[in-house]
Amino acid sequence: MASIQRVARNCRKVMCIGRNYADHVKELNNTKPKQPFFFLKPPSSILLPGAGPVLRPRGVAMHYEVELGLVMGKTVRDLDPEDTQGAMDAIEGYLLAIDMTARNVQEEAKKKGLPWSIAKGFDTFLPISNLIAKSRVPDPHNAHLWLSVNGEIKQSDNTGLMLFRIPRQLSDISRVMTLEAGDIVLTGTPKGVGPVTTGDVMKAGLQVDGKDIKDATIEVP
Amino acid sequence: MASIQRVARNCRKVMCIGRNYADHVKELNNTKPKQPFFFLKPPSSILLPGAGPVLRPRGVAMHYEVELGLVMGKTVRDLDPEDTQGAMDAIEGYLLAIDMTARNVQEEAKKKGLPWSIAKGFDTFLPISNLIAKSRVPDPHNAHLWLSVNGEIKQSDNTGLMLFRIPRQLSDISRVMTLEAGDIVLTGTPKGVGPVTTGDVMKAGLQVDGKDIKDATIEVP
Ligand SMILES: [Mg+2]
Ligand SMILES: [Mg+2]
Ligand SMILES: [Mg+2]
Repeated sequence: MASIQRVARNCRKVMCIGRNYADHVKELNNTKPKQPFFFLKPPSSILLPGAGPVLRPRGVAMHYEVELGLVMGKTVRDLDPEDTQGAMDAIEGYLLAIDMTARNVQEEAKKKGLPWSIAKGFDTFLPISNLIAKSRVPDPHNAHLWLSVNGEIKQSDNTGLMLFRIPRQLSDISRVMTLEAGDIVLTGTPKGVGPVTTGDVMKAGLQVDGKDIKDATIEVP
Repeated sequence: MASIQRVARNCRKVMCIGRNYADHVKELNNTKPKQPFFFLKPPSSILLPGAGPVLRPRGVAMHYEVELGLVMGKTVRDLDPEDTQGAMDAIEGYLLAIDMTARNVQEEAKKKGLPWSIAKGFDTFLPISNLIAKSRVPDPHNAHLWLSVNGEIKQSDNTGLMLFRIPRQLSDISRVMTLEAGDIVLTGTPKGVGPVTTGDVMKAGLQVDGKDIKDATIEVP
């Protein structure tokens, strides 16, 4: 727990990939990207484990998106997309995250060609788990993400379904902007996103070899 | 100079307002917003005074936008738009900034309804001046921004032309996301934005009562 507070304190950017699971692209009627695209969430949106509920702003249709997060342990720029070792060495550890999204605000922004920063950036819109030791996830492209709302499973898919894998993501980001030690990268959400409102209980987890990793649990009242 | 390094180090988000000067809205063929909209730049895009040139990424049409920046001295949320005193008290000091923009990348994003984070977030895309003491700018809505390229004045307008003033900006932002001490807010650019390329020299300044403020100078080779 102490370590995740350090992660939150040291984080200077949260970079997220969009449309990185084919079935999720379809469910939002989006087109499959030829190359990855990214957006920023502010560090102020982080909600630490046990820090209370996600706050739904008035008039906002709030959606959950469960994602595998990377915590950067090294500062990297211009990473080669083929440099799998370099990418993996730059990661300090993992976390589970819910990329909360004001879907109606985002849809409006998309229609008008406006930025996504508000739709993605409200306070509490980034619930995270504890820091997950790297050794607990031997292969980040073979882990199972799940999320339930009020006890009903809504998302449940393997990270192997990512359209663009982690080295490619870190390469594309770091060719635009330096990834600094402490930055967080969210690797995209599988299908099954949907609405939650005040009072709904979200739980999420990450399984390796069919077992939930203890530090990868999120429970948001 | 030491103080601006501290500002850069402590900054966890850079929040920027779009279309906040009527003549700039017109020159980009945009519609005048009924309410302010905002986007994030990553702290990694900051270019400190004297730290070298802005780097033009291959294939990028790079535009300058000179802006008055606010450095937050207090953490604020849910600020009332009428609370001018509260807004001013939350500001530690000012800086001058150039919100460099990959205009072709941004136009493409706008067309496709995609985020602006890449277009705004390349390394070196946020040249800043030294920290300007608050006392040097008695009225931030009556200061004169200017920017020249290779000695030719391109932007020159008074901050009094802002469509949405600083208290309204801080209110709108802080109702979405907490503004933390150390955050930077960019208040928009006046008309006259345009392209620069490798080798062009940008200079920018801020005048109060017709005189350039020493700490508000930017010179980017
Ligand atoms: Mg954006
Ligand atoms: Mg997402
Ligand atoms: Mg701007």
